Amino acid sequence: MLRPMTIGKEPGRAVSGISQATADRVEVRGRDLTGDLMGRLTFTQYFHLLLTGDEPTEDQTFFLDLLLVAIAEHGMMPTNVAARMTLAADPTALQGAVAAGILGAGPVVLGTSEECARLLEGLRASGRDPAEAVREIHAAGGKVPGFGHPVHRPVDPRAVRILELADERGVSGDHVVLARALHAAVVNVWEKPLPMNVALPIAAVMLDLGYPSSVVKAVPILARTAGLLAHLVEEQKDPLGFYLAGRAEEAVEYEAPGG
Amino acid sequence: MLRPMTIGKEPGRAVSGISQATADRVEVRGRDLTGDLMGRLTFTQYFHLLLTGDEPTEDQTFFLDLLLVAIAEHGMMPTNVAARMTLAADPTALQGAVAAGILGAGPVVLGTSEECARLLEGLRASGRDPAEAVREIHAAGGKVPGFGHPVHRPVDPRAVRILELADERGVSGDHVVLARALHAAVVNVWEKPLPMNVALPIAAVMLDLGYPSSVVKAVPILARTAGLLAHLVEEQKDPLGFYLAGRAEEAVEYEAPGG
Amino acid sequence: MLRPMTIGKEPGRAVSGISQATADRVEVRGRDLTGDLMGRLTFTQYFHLLLTGDEPTEDQTFFLDLLLVAIAEHGMMPTNVAARMTLAADPTALQGAVAAGILGAGPVVLGTSEECARLLEGLRASGRDPAEAVREIHAAGGKVPGFGHPVHRPVDPRAVRILELADERGVSGDHVVLARALHAAVVNVWEKPLPMNVALPIAAVMLDLGYPSSVVKAVPILARTAGLLAHLVEEQKDPLGFYLAGRAEEAVEYEAPGG
Amino acid sequence: MLRPMTIGKEPGRAVSGISQATADRVEVRGRDLTGDLMGRLTFTQYFHLLLTGDEPTEDQTFFLDLLLVAIAEHGMMPTNVAARMTLAADPTALQGAVAAGILGAGPVVLGTSEECARLLEGLRASGRDPAEAVREIHAAGGKVPGFGHPVHRPVDPRAVRILELADERGVSGDHVVLARALHAAVVNVWEKPLPMNVALPIAAVMLDLGYPSSVVKAVPILARTAGLLAHLVEEQKDPLGFYLAGRAEEAVEYEAPGG
Repeated sequence: MLRPMTIGKEPGRAVSGISQATADRVEVRGRDLTGDLMGRLTFTQYFHLLLTGDEPTEDQTFFLDLLLVAIAEHGMMPTNVAARMTLAADPTALQGAVAAGILGAGPVVLGTSEECARLLEGLRASGRDPAEAVREIHAAGGKVPGFGHPVHRPVDPRAVRILELADERGVSGDHVVLARALHAAVVNVWEKPLPMNVALPIAAVMLDLGYPSSVVKAVPILARTAGLLAHLVEEQKDPLGFYLAGRAEEAVEYEAPGG
Repeated sequence: MLRPMTIGKEPGRAVSGISQATADRVEVRGRDLTGDLMGRLTFTQYFHLLLTGDEPTEDQTFFLDLLLVAIAEHGMMPTNVAARMTLAADPTALQGAVAAGILGAGPVVLGTSEECARLLEGLRASGRDPAEAVREIHAAGGKVPGFGHPVHRPVDPRAVRILELADERGVSGDHVVLARALHAAVVNVWEKPLPMNVALPIAAVMLDLGYPSSVVKAVPILARTAGLLAHLVEEQKDPLGFYLAGRAEEAVEYEAPGG
Repeated sequence: MLRPMTIGKEPGRAVSGISQATADRVEVRGRDLTGDLMGRLTFTQYFHLLLTGDEPTEDQTFFLDLLLVAIAEHGMMPTNVAARMTLAADPTALQGAVAAGILGAGPVVLGTSEECARLLEGLRASGRDPAEAVREIHAAGGKVPGFGHPVHRPVDPRAVRILELADERGVSGDHVVLARALHAAVVNVWEKPLPMNVALPIAAVMLDLGYPSSVVKAVPILARTAGLLAHLVEEQKDPLGFYLAGRAEEAVEYEAPGG
Repeated sequence: MLRPMTIGKEPGRAVSGISQATADRVEVRGRDLTGDLMGRLTFTQYFHLLLTGDEPTEDQTFFLDLLLVAIAEHGMMPTNVAARMTLAADPTALQGAVAAGILGAGPVVLGTSEECARLLEGLRASGRDPAEAVREIHAAGGKVPGFGHPVHRPVDPRAVRILELADERGVSGDHVVLARALHAAVVNVWEKPLPMNVALPIAAVMLDLGYPSSVVKAVPILARTAGLLAHLVEEQKDPLGFYLAGRAEEAVEYEAPGG
């Protein structure tokens, strides 16, 4: 018998609160999947239940749908390019191509929502002046997460729309106020009309709706998976993967040492 | 300049019909993301639009939600175990853990819906007797996709519920009829009360609702991503990953050659 | 307690013959890792031992090194592009970028060695005339694995070199003879000077050296991992990932429905 | 035409120094692959050339082989479990299973070599007393990378063997001296006979041999890929994947809310 290579402490009793499948029943978060949830909850409501253990309020449902729709798709992004190239190399392994795309959903591209959430939480907990925090980050040569975008200028229309709807529906709270204060401070300190990108309103609205910050990054990842699947269905019909790889390849010059 | 390593024919003109992001606008399937889609479509409706280019009917929305809910989560499945182990090894790379989980969504576990769809389409196109097809598969030592389940006996309650709702809402058509005929034939030919599992009703209902078979596998992959994210949010709070790996490891004996 | 979702039959006794780690010892394939293998075997010899359970002969070592070197790196291939784009999105997750690259090592790009091995084994076992097999594949509209290359014309210099060294060292056997007969038949039947690519000699030489065909695909995957790591170390220093993605993106036109 | 979503500055001229494939030649790091490298370099020497641009010295070759052998395989580790479960779900996608395994090579499990390298470099550059650095880390509630192991006690035999051979061959330099000083300080400050694990000697010997710290993590990843491939070849013959998942699953209890 191998000795288990357990790293860290063993849980006294290993417990998960998400779901259980038995011969005649699937129970999820204490509810009967087939008798209760199927046909009653939308996928978005179910996603909320899976993540948090509770069913969403009407506002949570509306905004979770809104945020998932806002970031699922945004043109031929790097994640879509990588997924299409991967499917071209193995047209039967859809899951491999999706995985390759999701691997590109790193913090540089998609993870800033989570960073934004932590920044907003920290500011709110400490009661600190956002402008002061921004000046400090700028002085240290850093960047404030949630600002600037390679395509959208002078504003990111998705960010504008999310905040608009949050105001209209009365869900804007402390975190949305802080997000706007950050924006004013960033424009002032950087002396440039940097757009607030979509990551910051996602974080602000989710926190104002009561989501914990640990859940924030799950939203862009689920959303992006939907976009990836659309690209892969299109790729199966009209393959572009190797063409895309060729365009990338020919844009780079090889330079031998001393060359 | 490297010579592009393009495999296969180059597209005369490389075109994608999904989306485009410009400075002030994101256009998806010919629609304005921020001015039209955000706040109007649910994520499920948007997923349908992304995949097919059209907005869903009411029935398509209802059943796409239903099917996504039916298969998003099913206990501590292998995909969830792999994802949790991966997050334990790199707690900051959520996307890596999701990718590891999705890689386990191979045809043995999740891909049978697609196989079911192709079987149903073939039967419908050829007008062939399902019982005859089943006898032929059995005689060749094969398996009919969509039957048998390691946990659910004598029925898979999810399969029952999907067909029940399809009947109730009047969407059951030729493919649901064929699915039921396959079930009767399988029970008869194998002489065992094999349950129809969830994969076959997913395929049958999607085809009866007009989805092409190429889209069928996208549904379990998006659904499963939601379940994975729930497990990973729980894993960040209450880590089980290395514990799970330890239980797997200690269940295997090492045997030296000649041992 | 969850009921284990075991698919298929359970092994009576779960056994692995590869390795075991205990408090003071790591045993691999019946040998003491630290007291015997470390410092005595090269990595290539150890890879052979890991895969097969035996230590390699001198010829096996020479050709396993040769084949790994032959295919580790081949310019800015799609796998390297995908890996670099992935690292750009999460510069700290080297393993995620390697995984994204390896996911592109699908059968279209790298898996043909395995297909070649099965073809050669089948021909040898059946004693069938390779020319007849080629004519049959051609008549059915198929392709013979191991021929044609997007860059190398009229010959793939790696294929030439492998066979040259196999002849020089006297390891060319039945499978190399069959590979050459396939080449002659392919050129004849297709009426084009199609080059034999590197996949076929890899398969032929490995089979002539006694490797089982199940091991053949492991070689390109390990080799390609080395190339990926070189690109990722370069990417960390001189980032190209988003630039590559940009060149791919701008090569595709968005076309709205009816557009 | 889509506007390229380039993040960050564009390189003035995109250059890679690794390799180029043209019709009749593959050039790698300024050398002719087929005419010069194939048959002359071992895979390990080629890996060095790929990573660094130079051919290795005799000592670099010996120790690169040694380190790759030291960490390629270590029993039924989490990475091997995840890879086997993934192959069970899609037996045809070897690359997907390898990728799932590599995704588990995160910093908690394999990345400590890189952290060790940075610690050693920092100490050497600053001339700081290692004991003081250890006391500071301990006081801050941190952990010194490279110490402790879930299986190996009181020593990690691989670490012992690497340092022994480094001494024997006269390659132990400043970084090995610092590694030993760290060990003495850790035992002293933690008041426990914590073993130096394999990660620290890997880092120390590589730095003493002139490798940059950016290359250190590439070694465990290539090594582990070899081990993964051995497990996957075994898995194809004697499947354990779903059995392993079952043992993990049944070790966790589901607890409904309020349950």
